[in-house]
Amino acid sequence: MSQTELLSNVRVVLSHTTHPGNIGAAARAMKTMGLSRLYLINPRYFPDPQATAMAAEADDILESATVCASIDEALHGVVFTVAMTARMRDISIEVKTPREAMPELLQHAAYQPVALLFGTEMSGLTNEEMGKAQVLANIPANPEYSSLNVAAAVQVVAYELAEAAQLHQPYAEALPLATHEQVEGMFAHMEQTLHAIGFFSTQNPARMMQRLRRLYARARLEQEEINILRGILSVATGYNARLRKRYQEEHPDVQEH
Amino acid sequence: MSQTELLSNVRVVLSHTTHPGNIGAAARAMKTMGLSRLYLINPRYFPDPQATAMAAEADDILESATVCASIDEALHGVVFTVAMTARMRDISIEVKTPREAMPELLQHAAYQPVALLFGTEMSGLTNEEMGKAQVLANIPANPEYSSLNVAAAVQVVAYELAEAAQLHQPYAEALPLATHEQVEGMFAHMEQTLHAIGFFSTQNPARMMQRLRRLYARARLEQEEINILRGILSVATGYNARLRKRYQEEHPDVQEH
Repeated sequence: MSQTELLSNVRVVLSHTTHPGNIGAAARAMKTMGLSRLYLINPRYFPDPQATAMAAEADDILESATVCASIDEALHGVVFTVAMTARMRDISIEVKTPREAMPELLQHAAYQPVALLFGTEMSGLTNEEMGKAQVLANIPANPEYSSLNVAAAVQVVAYELAEAAQLHQPYAEALPLATHEQVEGMFAHMEQTLHAIGFFSTQNPARMMQRLRRLYARARLEQEEINILRGILSVATGYNARLRKRYQEEHPDVQEH
Repeated sequence: MSQTELLSNVRVVLSHTTHPGNIGAAARAMKTMGLSRLYLINPRYFPDPQATAMAAEADDILESATVCASIDEALHGVVFTVAMTARMRDISIEVKTPREAMPELLQHAAYQPVALLFGTEMSGLTNEEMGKAQVLANIPANPEYSSLNVAAAVQVVAYELAEAAQLHQPYAEALPLATHEQVEGMFAHMEQTLHAIGFFSTQNPARMMQRLRRLYARARLEQEEINILRGILSVATGYNARLRKRYQEEHPDVQEH
């Protein structure tokens, strides 16, 4: 696989970008490093003359950009997402530097689509958005002023990616990772199941789901494993349904909780 | 020496910047990576509201920026300069990547001022400007579109510098390097001497001086060595003057060339 093919599997996803100039500058930053797939989640203004002006000769990247209504749409088909964050969050998915994270991203890009996810200018990514990534990446910066412009962050990360691509050696025998929608489907199934079996009667569901996301993000789930987990979930509900049925039969006077 | 002190010896020099927004964005990029010393050689517009807007909370860097009328003024006191170039030039001073060049820059920054030199948006640095650097650095980029925005280039190089600073270990017993003006003084002396001894009657002076600059740029001249070289130049002129005098005495009929 050539370096161009490898990088063509990498999406740059900008979420809710406020200033169109930043979208154009990000496109230029991408193109200088050989990236071409730009996804925009609900940009405030796009297309826009300021975006085109800042893109300079990278206007082809803007023209072929995909505008999406949701993060799930932007990550459809993606098997590995690195979300950029300026702040260390308490949800604590694995945090790496771009230099650490890009070689792993490329390992997955050799086989399936992957994504780099960037938040808004003012507030970055939401916890929900970060929960959909496998790795958080933090650009090491001045602790007293760590606020990189979003296009500058795209430049640094794309640069690290291009540096890593120079050294890229694919692992042998990689098993296909689960896509974003397969993972999300599994989490929806899991949450439903945990409700059904009464697990959430003593636990905060949102907090618990974040912790479970963290666990499975670290694991880099394969497609086969999604099938196994969902199999377990199905059985768990079935078992619970049978238990409840028996309980209700034996205690017809007790109310549902 | 703390990392802050180390980085405070690094000047970012922007030559003849056209768009004030780029100056502001460069200041922001610097501050995110712990750099604070901005030098501007003949900026087209400065100060300017666009620069301030793009600097965001790095406006203190703009306020303390030094505006210079020439490159020699901006490099006064500097002992080691890395000039950024997008193109490989035929003058071929040593070319490195930022990742290779930043550790060396820091070695010198531990003792004396050093500089990162960036050219204009359209045409980069002139050959004359590059001739005043010890190393050229080229950000590895897409061969089909290698044109990083100048502030984006500042961000990448400052990022590499901050990464290198994390790993910095000073060499023991460094001898003081010659400052920019000591080196320039030596070159002026050398050129004058080469004229005086008739060397340029068979050589293109500009081309030859570029090649000599290349040689001494690689050497990273120390202050003591400047004294030695200038000593040699003085002697050479004196010797030549004596030779010429004797020649004229012996051949009173031959014209000066």
